[in-house]
Amino acid sequence: MEIGQFVFSGIPRVTFGSGSFSGLNKIVRSYGRNVLIVTGGNSLKKTGKLDTLIADLEKDKIKVSLYSVSGEPSPAMIDHAAAEFRKKPINAVVSIGGGSVLDAGKAIAAMLGEEGSVEDYLEGVGTKKLSGVKAPFIAVPTTAGTGSEATKNAVLSIVGEQGYKKSLRHDNYVPDAVLIDPELMLSCPKAITASCGMDALSQLLESYISVKANPMTDALALSGIKAFSESFLIAIEHGDHDIIAREKMAYASFISGITLAQAGLGTVHGIAGPMGGFFPVPHGTACGTLLAPVLRILADKLISMNHPAVKKLAEAAKIITGIQNGDDSILCAALCDAVDSLTEKAGIPHLCSFGIQESDLAKIAVASDNKSSPAELSQSEMIEVMKGILN
Amino acid sequence: MEIGQFVFSGIPRVTFGSGSFSGLNKIVRSYGRNVLIVTGGNSLKKTGKLDTLIADLEKDKIKVSLYSVSGEPSPAMIDHAAAEFRKKPINAVVSIGGGSVLDAGKAIAAMLGEEGSVEDYLEGVGTKKLSGVKAPFIAVPTTAGTGSEATKNAVLSIVGEQGYKKSLRHDNYVPDAVLIDPELMLSCPKAITASCGMDALSQLLESYISVKANPMTDALALSGIKAFSESFLIAIEHGDHDIIAREKMAYASFISGITLAQAGLGTVHGIAGPMGGFFPVPHGTACGTLLAPVLRILADKLISMNHPAVKKLAEAAKIITGIQNGDDSILCAALCDAVDSLTEKAGIPHLCSFGIQESDLAKIAVASDNKSSPAELSQSEMIEVMKGILN
Repeated sequence: MEIGQFVFSGIPRVTFGSGSFSGLNKIVRSYGRNVLIVTGGNSLKKTGKLDTLIADLEKDKIKVSLYSVSGEPSPAMIDHAAAEFRKKPINAVVSIGGGSVLDAGKAIAAMLGEEGSVEDYLEGVGTKKLSGVKAPFIAVPTTAGTGSEATKNAVLSIVGEQGYKKSLRHDNYVPDAVLIDPELMLSCPKAITASCGMDALSQLLESYISVKANPMTDALALSGIKAFSESFLIAIEHGDHDIIAREKMAYASFISGITLAQAGLGTVHGIAGPMGGFFPVPHGTACGTLLAPVLRILADKLISMNHPAVKKLAEAAKIITGIQNGDDSILCAALCDAVDSLTEKAGIPHLCSFGIQESDLAKIAVASDNKSSPAELSQSEMIEVMKGILN
Repeated sequence: MEIGQFVFSGIPRVTFGSGSFSGLNKIVRSYGRNVLIVTGGNSLKKTGKLDTLIADLEKDKIKVSLYSVSGEPSPAMIDHAAAEFRKKPINAVVSIGGGSVLDAGKAIAAMLGEEGSVEDYLEGVGTKKLSGVKAPFIAVPTTAGTGSEATKNAVLSIVGEQGYKKSLRHDNYVPDAVLIDPELMLSCPKAITASCGMDALSQLLESYISVKANPMTDALALSGIKAFSESFLIAIEHGDHDIIAREKMAYASFISGITLAQAGLGTVHGIAGPMGGFFPVPHGTACGTLLAPVLRILADKLISMNHPAVKKLAEAAKIITGIQNGDDSILCAALCDAVDSLTEKAGIPHLCSFGIQESDLAKIAVASDNKSSPAELSQSEMIEVMKGILN
């Protein structure tokens, strides 16, 4: 193994386990008397868990404000919430929901410590420098995929012709506390389980082979890939009752957030970003459908470069396919086939379902990049990739 | 793999890499204008690195106080330093040295935030509750072994008839920042490289099979064991110039601190604690000499219990011995043989070198425990273990 030089920082304190949600009120209480709870749709309320939490908090004389978000968060949504809650003495923001709800809460907590519009601070959009001062933020994911519960950025987007998907990012934005209760994920629908799960796998694989990877992220990424491969299809099929599968997927997702925050991502996310800005493709779906074809080109390039990342793809292949022998190129091919097969079994939709046409691909490719990938796809290769998953 | 329930908290921000020491002044500066630097003997001064650091800090108008410690820290030493530096406005404490220096600095930083004697707060000795308020603490290890740079406790001891070795422990005591520069370890003597390295291995193995282990500590522990097995004997033999070996041992040590802080330790440390209280055995030496015989009894017990930890010992065996096939009991036996052989090659001294006699063993065993070991050694088994490594 190679150690070299690296910085590793900011793994949030995590409380993991089925049933751990009942301890959330104690975590919240440790931050102060005024809490803002950010949620998504109605599903949490339906289970009665939100009401129980609020009752527990009010019994402790903690004042609860609520904010509900729908869809992926936009700058306007964050500005609206920040304007409303800057007037109140909020001691902590708690997000309970999927990646969008976590990112919304993370951005609101951040903007409680800043002035002006969040757009002024977005990477590649605004020019103001974030101070890092913010309200404490507690993340409680209800889907397994984005890893937002472990990352230092919140993704905000405007969808459309001039659309974008950009990050509000600061080292201080790693959540102050994370509570992961796989029971909250039992009600997650099959399609979301599938697309979020593919997002987690793409995050694990991309950070594992990233040029910024280090031995700590390598060890964790492999452990996340193992948990994913033991549970992904089971979580889709039997996720309404198989708590062990939900546990493993929740773990894989959390780990993917840690490794991406430390080691960065690759071409799949480099394309998924602009794609999700121009068209209403959910992030997990974009990553899920892109992963297999991007990986195939990438593996070929890395093999022809005799790149050390080939060994890593071979390691991942052993875990995902169960094949233990064979040279690296055979293992890489087996990995690509396996990811293809997972994408198909997961029923990830093709790009045309979101109004993307062949004539749009060049525009997406021009706005895309390869992030920290160990080999680069050209714009024409990116277009080829997207063409193959259009219909 | 099993996920289950766990809490994972507090990995310090680490800057790792050869030559990274030159960036220490910037890290210090970010904490304020008054810094206390704790060091050990003369070796750091001899290299000129301490003078360069002080000059860099003073150029930045940072006021430097120095405190030098020798041997393992005692409560009296910490009280003396705390009394002296509570009078000054210390913004951060930096320890540059081996495990004793790191523990001394960690305890001083802690006691700058408390009142009274440190003995009042020691586990199993005092009764006062720590507030957790402390001065920021930066750890810069110059040996690879104790892992103190990643842990939330400082071990203090009084050696002698009424001696003890006890921890000052609080979740907030994980260092605020860690800088690991393997170049600082090039001058570490062979004997210390050997005993500290065996300490790191015992910490990795004990936390890996601990009943409190979780998938994150498992992944990290295996990565640490791999780094150790690729470098330990090379670091002893060629440690004056082989920077790659020093890098790997520094990594293994840091990881051992993370995993022990999260998952706890076992019988080796359960015996080494009281042994080091009663007799002047350096901690690394005690752990190094105990590891092989404790492991042998433990492996037999776990195999006869058909305990899941046997699979873990087999995994560790594959990494350390290179043997990939064979049933678990064969792999466990190979692991014990390999650790025996490492202990011998490392030249770890026997217990009689520190004045321990056969008649002392019962007293040590009575004060010992099995910590978080998956199987327990009885007091008579502990005595048998120590008898075997007496001469």
